Amino acid sequence: RCFQFFKLPGRVMGIRLLRFTSVVIVVLLLVAGALTALLPTIKDDKMPILKRESKTQSQSALDSFTLIMQTYNRTDLLLKLLNHYQAIPHLHKVIVVWNNIGEKTPEEMWSSLGPHPVPVVFKVQTVNHMRNRLQNFPELETKAVLMMDDDTLVSAHDLTFAFSVWQQFPEHIVGFVPRKHISTPSGVYSYGSFELQSPGFGNGDQYSMVLIGAAFFHSGYLEDFQRQPEAVYALIDETQNCDDIAMNFLVAKHTGKPSGVFVKPVDIRNLEKDTNSGYSGMWHRAEHLLQRSYCVNKLVNIYDGMPLKYSNIMISQFGFPNYANHKTKM
Amino acid sequence: RCFQFFKLPGRVMGIRLLRFTSVVIVVLLLVAGALTALLPTIKDDKMPILKRESKTQSQSALDSFTLIMQTYNRTDLLLKLLNHYQAIPHLHKVIVVWNNIGEKTPEEMWSSLGPHPVPVVFKVQTVNHMRNRLQNFPELETKAVLMMDDDTLVSAHDLTFAFSVWQQFPEHIVGFVPRKHISTPSGVYSYGSFELQSPGFGNGDQYSMVLIGAAFFHSGYLEDFQRQPEAVYALIDETQNCDDIAMNFLVAKHTGKPSGVFVKPVDIRNLEKDTNSGYSGMWHRAEHLLQRSYCVNKLVNIYDGMPLKYSNIMISQFGFPNYANHKTKM
Repeated sequence: RCFQFFKLPGRVMGIRLLRFTSVVIVVLLLVAGALTALLPTIKDDKMPILKRESKTQSQSALDSFTLIMQTYNRTDLLLKLLNHYQAIPHLHKVIVVWNNIGEKTPEEMWSSLGPHPVPVVFKVQTVNHMRNRLQNFPELETKAVLMMDDDTLVSAHDLTFAFSVWQQFPEHIVGFVPRKHISTPSGVYSYGSFELQSPGFGNGDQYSMVLIGAAFFHSGYLEDFQRQPEAVYALIDETQNCDDIAMNFLVAKHTGKPSGVFVKPVDIRNLEKDTNSGYSGMWHRAEHLLQRSYCVNKLVNIYDGMPLKYSNIMISQFGFPNYANHKTKM
Repeated sequence: RCFQFFKLPGRVMGIRLLRFTSVVIVVLLLVAGALTALLPTIKDDKMPILKRESKTQSQSALDSFTLIMQTYNRTDLLLKLLNHYQAIPHLHKVIVVWNNIGEKTPEEMWSSLGPHPVPVVFKVQTVNHMRNRLQNFPELETKAVLMMDDDTLVSAHDLTFAFSVWQQFPEHIVGFVPRKHISTPSGVYSYGSFELQSPGFGNGDQYSMVLIGAAFFHSGYLEDFQRQPEAVYALIDETQNCDDIAMNFLVAKHTGKPSGVFVKPVDIRNLEKDTNSGYSGMWHRAEHLLQRSYCVNKLVNIYDGMPLKYSNIMISQFGFPNYANHKTKM
């Protein structure tokens, strides 16, 4: 009966229908085949990459840090230090804040001597300001910042350990240079170090600041720094000093606790005398320390109170360089 | 007309009324005066005392600690140490766990040599068990416990500093004696100190336990200890050892972090050789260390996993004994 169907007067139409149907079926199969061939490939190409990127990114953000180093008139030291710092474990990127106004960065030379372990970004500045290093750089991808002065050499061991300490105290400035303020009966504050009288909370000394020229801190504080009273920026620009004291005020105010955690360095060196530039750091100026006492009092005015708190916690690395550092003679 | 009133036939009655009124008025005045004299005195006596008591109690609970010292066969050392420890700043009370079964405590002699800075309670035990010191003593009023072996002398400076560190890390065992475990390819753990290979997380050494024989910890952990699996008590009783390892397991499990924080002591001494009793501590037994490795593996079984975590944080007191301890040669 089926055969008879095809033999009816619509036989010609039947054949056309058959051809048409065949063509349709073949086309459909081809399209299906094409789709099948395409889909898995797209999946294979894209998803693993997405996974890889996000894994690297999330790992980077949490488990690595960005070195921010401001430099002025000591390019020889800068390059010497970059060779050392570029290889520190857990380093994600270096941001060089180029305060040599009008001068070309060593970017070309740097690239010609590649490849390098991590990306190095030269941020050309328009004015030679101390607080240039406290910008919220868009290149900053990590939660942690390591800020170093351009004449300070800290060993990789110290930095690796201090970074692990920062990860346990992420809201603090974790670094190698402790300082303190003291108050006097007149209510006027003074800034200094061990030479100043101890604040008198039990025996030993106390510190209330950790300088950011050799320290780890949370990148969020760079964001916060952009939202400070104008008077703070004016003070730092006026003195070309005290940006670190201002940061300690900011952090102490934010946490209500001591701003810093002091990690005792095993090997920290100042390379100032090694420079050919003949330029020595700001801290050699006669008025340097007096300025910093001045800054403490101005900041207390601006912030309407003294937020700095004292601490006497000193952290060292257990059993490094050797077990003698914790051997107890009983 | 008033005068006339008194001159009326009721004149005698008027005088009587006047007298009566006068007497009533005088009596009322006397009563009022008596009341006025009484009331303030009662108030003055009671309220300041109530204020003083509650202030002392709340201060005590948070700002002071209880020393728990277990003693066996070294009463001469105990008394020597008590003279030192009774005067430590921030000490609230001493609990002596008397493991000399059947022997009279030195309570009478102690009282006869009073007054003493703080109360000392002698808790007589019925069996000489190592874990007697880990009871949740009702006399314990403070949040912090200082546990000391009866042959260990730690300076007041060290204790005062370590107590301030504990207040910043109240969920940890903050003490002076770090130890570690290591795992081996076979999966069997070993217990030890500096002599063991470092666990290999970066350079330097690591510790995973802080012994409770010279440490501060939260009194809540004594409560927790009462709720451990029976097998833990059996293990400690079987070995007359390892109560401190068990406590570290407990704390690590509770916090998910390293159980202890190591504070490097400036002056810690073992007075063992000074005793007249001829008794030397348990740790001199030949099997002592092997027992402790045994305990680590048993506890891993009991707790179904290894909760101990490594740390390499070593804390010292900034600027004590002098600033040389943080002076950085740059």
